[in-house]
Amino acid sequence: MSLLVVGTMAFDALETPFGKVDKIVGGAATYIVYSAAYLCNQIDLVSVVGGDFPDEVMEDLHKRGVCTDGVQIKKDEKTFFWSGKYHVDMNTRDTIDTQLNVLETFDPILPAQYQNPDILMLGNLMPVIQKKVLSQMTTRPKFIVLDTMNFWIESSKPDLLEAFKEVDLLTINDEEARLLSGEYSLVKAAKHILKLGPKNLIIKKGEHGALLFNENETFFTPALPLEEVFDPTGAGDTFVGGIVGHLSKNNDFSFENLKRAIIYGTVMASFTCEKFGTERIANLTQEEIKERIQKLVQLGTYSL
Amino acid sequence: MSLLVVGTMAFDALETPFGKVDKIVGGAATYIVYSAAYLCNQIDLVSVVGGDFPDEVMEDLHKRGVCTDGVQIKKDEKTFFWSGKYHVDMNTRDTIDTQLNVLETFDPILPAQYQNPDILMLGNLMPVIQKKVLSQMTTRPKFIVLDTMNFWIESSKPDLLEAFKEVDLLTINDEEARLLSGEYSLVKAAKHILKLGPKNLIIKKGEHGALLFNENETFFTPALPLEEVFDPTGAGDTFVGGIVGHLSKNNDFSFENLKRAIIYGTVMASFTCEKFGTERIANLTQEEIKERIQKLVQLGTYSL
Repeated sequence: MSLLVVGTMAFDALETPFGKVDKIVGGAATYIVYSAAYLCNQIDLVSVVGGDFPDEVMEDLHKRGVCTDGVQIKKDEKTFFWSGKYHVDMNTRDTIDTQLNVLETFDPILPAQYQNPDILMLGNLMPVIQKKVLSQMTTRPKFIVLDTMNFWIESSKPDLLEAFKEVDLLTINDEEARLLSGEYSLVKAAKHILKLGPKNLIIKKGEHGALLFNENETFFTPALPLEEVFDPTGAGDTFVGGIVGHLSKNNDFSFENLKRAIIYGTVMASFTCEKFGTERIANLTQEEIKERIQKLVQLGTYSL
Repeated sequence: MSLLVVGTMAFDALETPFGKVDKIVGGAATYIVYSAAYLCNQIDLVSVVGGDFPDEVMEDLHKRGVCTDGVQIKKDEKTFFWSGKYHVDMNTRDTIDTQLNVLETFDPILPAQYQNPDILMLGNLMPVIQKKVLSQMTTRPKFIVLDTMNFWIESSKPDLLEAFKEVDLLTINDEEARLLSGEYSLVKAAKHILKLGPKNLIIKKGEHGALLFNENETFFTPALPLEEVFDPTGAGDTFVGGIVGHLSKNNDFSFENLKRAIIYGTVMASFTCEKFGTERIANLTQEEIKERIQKLVQLGTYSL
């Protein structure tokens, strides 16, 4: 099945307790497609970058089967830039700087061959842009995934709520679920959010795993306990990339298959945490993925 | 198999976002035996209370098969008192008041028939007292569980480290594991702690579940996602009570059976959170326990 990913590509400057980097390639869509490309083979990417974005990354993505015809390159402008510093616990971070650059005027125009994907992945972007993508679909995708963040929940709630009505799977973190619902309990928050439109909801809890909800069922998977979390930037996007990558392999959007998708997402995310930026997720073998899936299975397996 | 539980019985005053109680029965050993008594039938209890402790609780425990011959009643003194206030997230709390009272001079003298238990549960107490109990064992118990807390790690580390050498299973929370090991990563912390003597280690993460480690294996179980955490006081003790209760049912201290024990502990703890103090854990049916075990199984079940 075909997967269309819409989201940011960026430069990041990061500081963690383990080190510092000034300008590495990042962005939600970058992590999503790197992750998904291990699991499926028809990915179309819509994004925007400046003339400063490295050609090698685009070439690398082509080699992985990602079509970048939908990535606008604004030669005379600069790529979106984000800079952040992590606290010692690695679960919280401060944004040091955000330079929207090319994102400021981003108008996602989908090539004709992109307008009919089986799965649409709307990465974390201004909700108006997510809606603009939705409006260009010639037939409704079989499955629509939307990711968002606290900033949009606070500043663009009406647009976000409108987009929610189209959504098969919403992915947010625990804080965002609380912000969106006004409920502290995640069980209550999920009930509230599912009434807003999304048919399924994933609440990401970082190192504490992830919860999946639909109207009647709940599923939980832990994150893989790691010796060292080197840099969690992009882990949430890699997680979502693993999910849509797995879903793109077959024609099954049942709760059972969503569970499997989350297992893949969890494993992919664990790799991203091990090195700065995309360094680890861009250099994986299928064998490593398989081994780690086994590790995650073992972590939670028992018989009564 | 016989289970000997040594620990505190207390009065608690509690304030949570849901309400306030001035003086209810609490204490680690109280929660442990209430929980364990649903799962096994030979429990001996060693503790100390003042003349103000309600006879009805002792009678209630007798009815559940708990022998309280080892509970010293100091008629003219007052029971240990603890008062705490929970923050909105219910994961953190402030201690408002601690009155040791009878605990100050607690000298655990074990009746002769208590000195040869199959399983010994050393509840959270001054490490010197835990050692004193250990020294009264006429034969080494088949399995020794020790619970402790940050206060003892900071103030009585040498005694604690000495006790650790006898321990088959140590139960602490994530903060305590970090404090004890000096490692932020729980995987590294566990490796460090297992070298101190305990053959198995459980790291309790409250609403985020629990990790079980031995030298070669790791297991994780989530906590049950609850609509409302009303009062988490005693949840950790109830959890441990479920573990030793389950282990007392058979003669199996393998990692596989420890996993099962943690599943029972998790389910028992989920009940304690639903009402103030022991109200919920003292009023359970076997049917309710079975149902919730099923719920926990379902929460984490998937097939690849």
